[in-house]
Amino acid sequence: MDEIIVDFIEKPELEDAILIEGLPGVGNVGKLAVEHLIEEIDAEKYADIYSIYFPPQVLVDEDGLSKLVNNKLYYKKDVGEDNTDLILLTGDYQGMTPQGQYQLTDKILSIAKDMNVENLFSLGGYSQGEMIEIPEVLGAATTEKKVEEMKKLGVKFSEEDPSSGIVGASGLLLGLGDKLYDIPGVCLMGETSGYFVDPGAARVVLKTLANHIDLEIGYERLDEKAEEVEELTSKVKDMDMGGLQQEGGSQDLNYIG
Amino acid sequence: MDEIIVDFIEKPELEDAILIEGLPGVGNVGKLAVEHLIEEIDAEKYADIYSIYFPPQVLVDEDGLSKLVNNKLYYKKDVGEDNTDLILLTGDYQGMTPQGQYQLTDKILSIAKDMNVENLFSLGGYSQGEMIEIPEVLGAATTEKKVEEMKKLGVKFSEEDPSSGIVGASGLLLGLGDKLYDIPGVCLMGETSGYFVDPGAARVVLKTLANHIDLEIGYERLDEKAEEVEELTSKVKDMDMGGLQQEGGSQDLNYIG
Amino acid sequence: MDEIIVDFIEKPELEDAILIEGLPGVGNVGKLAVEHLIEEIDAEKYADIYSIYFPPQVLVDEDGLSKLVNNKLYYKKDVGEDNTDLILLTGDYQGMTPQGQYQLTDKILSIAKDMNVENLFSLGGYSQGEMIEIPEVLGAATTEKKVEEMKKLGVKFSEEDPSSGIVGASGLLLGLGDKLYDIPGVCLMGETSGYFVDPGAARVVLKTLANHIDLEIGYERLDEKAEEVEELTSKVKDMDMGGLQQEGGSQDLNYIG
Amino acid sequence: MDEIIVDFIEKPELEDAILIEGLPGVGNVGKLAVEHLIEEIDAEKYADIYSIYFPPQVLVDEDGLSKLVNNKLYYKKDVGEDNTDLILLTGDYQGMTPQGQYQLTDKILSIAKDMNVENLFSLGGYSQGEMIEIPEVLGAATTEKKVEEMKKLGVKFSEEDPSSGIVGASGLLLGLGDKLYDIPGVCLMGETSGYFVDPGAARVVLKTLANHIDLEIGYERLDEKAEEVEELTSKVKDMDMGGLQQEGGSQDLNYIG
Repeated sequence: MDEIIVDFIEKPELEDAILIEGLPGVGNVGKLAVEHLIEEIDAEKYADIYSIYFPPQVLVDEDGLSKLVNNKLYYKKDVGEDNTDLILLTGDYQGMTPQGQYQLTDKILSIAKDMNVENLFSLGGYSQGEMIEIPEVLGAATTEKKVEEMKKLGVKFSEEDPSSGIVGASGLLLGLGDKLYDIPGVCLMGETSGYFVDPGAARVVLKTLANHIDLEIGYERLDEKAEEVEELTSKVKDMDMGGLQQEGGSQDLNYIG
Repeated sequence: MDEIIVDFIEKPELEDAILIEGLPGVGNVGKLAVEHLIEEIDAEKYADIYSIYFPPQVLVDEDGLSKLVNNKLYYKKDVGEDNTDLILLTGDYQGMTPQGQYQLTDKILSIAKDMNVENLFSLGGYSQGEMIEIPEVLGAATTEKKVEEMKKLGVKFSEEDPSSGIVGASGLLLGLGDKLYDIPGVCLMGETSGYFVDPGAARVVLKTLANHIDLEIGYERLDEKAEEVEELTSKVKDMDMGGLQQEGGSQDLNYIG
Repeated sequence: MDEIIVDFIEKPELEDAILIEGLPGVGNVGKLAVEHLIEEIDAEKYADIYSIYFPPQVLVDEDGLSKLVNNKLYYKKDVGEDNTDLILLTGDYQGMTPQGQYQLTDKILSIAKDMNVENLFSLGGYSQGEMIEIPEVLGAATTEKKVEEMKKLGVKFSEEDPSSGIVGASGLLLGLGDKLYDIPGVCLMGETSGYFVDPGAARVVLKTLANHIDLEIGYERLDEKAEEVEELTSKVKDMDMGGLQQEGGSQDLNYIG
Repeated sequence: MDEIIVDFIEKPELEDAILIEGLPGVGNVGKLAVEHLIEEIDAEKYADIYSIYFPPQVLVDEDGLSKLVNNKLYYKKDVGEDNTDLILLTGDYQGMTPQGQYQLTDKILSIAKDMNVENLFSLGGYSQGEMIEIPEVLGAATTEKKVEEMKKLGVKFSEEDPSSGIVGASGLLLGLGDKLYDIPGVCLMGETSGYFVDPGAARVVLKTLANHIDLEIGYERLDEKAEEVEELTSKVKDMDMGGLQQEGGSQDLNYIG
């Protein structure tokens, strides 16, 4: 079989579109943010991506139905005040090897380029290794212009963070988008402890993005999830447990999805 | 050499066939079940599969003869009351890497499709992490119709299990069969402790499948093996040993073969 | 670059030749045996094999000269009473991945086939995990006829050993030689503790092979090396040290070279 | 995408050129040396090398700008008294797998060959596992003539070191340069503890190379960096800490960059 199989449900025609990525990673921040956005704007799935670079695994839903793990592309036209066309990328896993990460990201960028994507945002979490009261949004971008635009929205560009760069799909979309596809990109990272899934961090990241594209959406479901996690984590804090594993598809706490 | 080499002994012509997989995995349940079935119905080997995705290893039999590790395909026509044509897959190992798992499963599905396979069953164990008195059969399937059919046979479709999905050949046969080959599939998993090879779990899985295809076979040899393991495990329990390694080709207890 | 590069120095014409393999492995038994044989019969190197499957490494000799790690093929015509043509394979490393092992072994077999190799012997050590007073030679073979021939030479074919089969080049040469190249093969394994390089085990393996091809050679250098190791190991025993690392290119004590 | 992408900024025409490699490795010695040389002779970058063999990662600079990790080629014509043309190789990482190391080194050698490189030097550190007062420069070379030339410059060719050979890009440039491209090579290794980045070791390595090509450069910045590290390490010694991790892109202390 081909290393990557893209199964198109439809081929929407978009103009001056923005690609927004949220795959599993630190605190599952990116995935939570993009899944929430997909629901809020009622985006349509238009492609499934299967690959030998994903784990050899099916997921089983509550009805006993199995589904091969994959990544998914959604779109929505004329979103927000600026009538922006959006492509949204989420999925069960990131590629499992460096080679897989490169090939999957390259494939997604080539699809995006074909669909007139002119800008991209990768969303993720930034693990601070300690509980975060009010998470800030850290940023990185491929151009100075993008850095300036994001600073106006309150995004923090720090000399120290991310000290080790950005690893995984969020980083590669910026890197390959810039070098091979001429698509400028921004990575928005919500500060998170890194110990739990973090809907609160997803909220601040999504809010920043929504402001940028002049989009108003509700955050109720993210808030509810955040409260659930809050409850759980305070119980855990009471039990005084140390280095807990986060949920989600990431095997590596330093991975920024 | 090619990554996968299929060495056909013959090319049987089958109609409306069912593929049944039982490769090494948790409790070796699937392999035990399929090997027992092969013996009971006196199925014929028709192909050997060699691959760079298997370990670089020969096995040596009691006469000192070496055999390159492989997977094997058997067939039997007109089995049971419904005169069903069966293809049976078993072997020494599963593919050793995710990429190998995908490519091997894809190759087997393409062979199956060519031989008019219309349905598939993957058999395995489901590790409960504790001793199981009376094992149930858990299921997953690619279509609602299959779920309903299996429920009637007593297969349990649980919201909780398998919580992490199905990993390995059993999962991929469902996933790729569904997405790339249009072959509906069912995975039958016998509950097992996961600590030992488990002929008892193999028996319940095989019984379920036999009921489905209206086939009567003996289970004496599985019962004998189950007793042997029982004896062994009760000795071990007496010695109060913890986390024992299972036998068989699986390196990963969570692997469902 | 190509995955495997064979650099021929010459292309000798051989008849009814025997391939003898001795690559690094348990106790370095195979490599010691083949290197000793090469010296004793004054065999000629005719090809260097470089590969991306070997470590990215040069070795540096006592004069400061670097040499890319490789495998080497030697030959000698009309050896022993029977005037047998021999090809001898040794080298710095075995392939580092299963895929590399398969591809390298396949390449070597295709070269051997082209040079009229009709039989092959892979030499190695068999780790017993305890000090061995008088090492026996264990065997495995691809045909019953070979098993019988070897039994007459005192080779032990045991129901228990090698229980996990033969891993690595020695195993694959038998397996792929048998399945893909129609070259019957024998693996001769000298019993060894597995804790040290073992020239004594190399000696008994080589003696068995020499008897088979009616060849008389000296064993002085192997005996001297064996004495050196003996001295070392008795010192070590005095120091009462446990699980010592063996020397040589093998990273895995269970690897049979 | 291609496994290796070379993005040429310009294609300089050089004559009888020398390739000098300094990628991350033990003590970051090679990278420090080549980066210092690039600054001192004001060399021009002419190519960026991206690859699936590098980590899937962008680095983020102090302005928040992201850059895909890569290797970089610089050049400078008519350097030193002998008017030597130089190509300089440095970068963020070495290839992450043996296969990646081979393919990247082969690609760089093929570029070098096209640009009339006639000799190469790979620079690195040699970890002694203890603090080094006055570091010596150890050498290895592909030809006796090179060994003699280097000895005259005070380079030490030792029977013991490097006992395990030279692993990584520095080793492969010698090995593949010699075997596949007919480019003679020298590896210069500065003795270092292996516990810290070591600008002092970089200095002695660079001085040796500069002497060889009759080039006078300043070493002030390396000296300053060496003092900074000295301060840091003496503080650490006061704190009596053991096995510290070195900085830099190398994951393996035995890796010689």
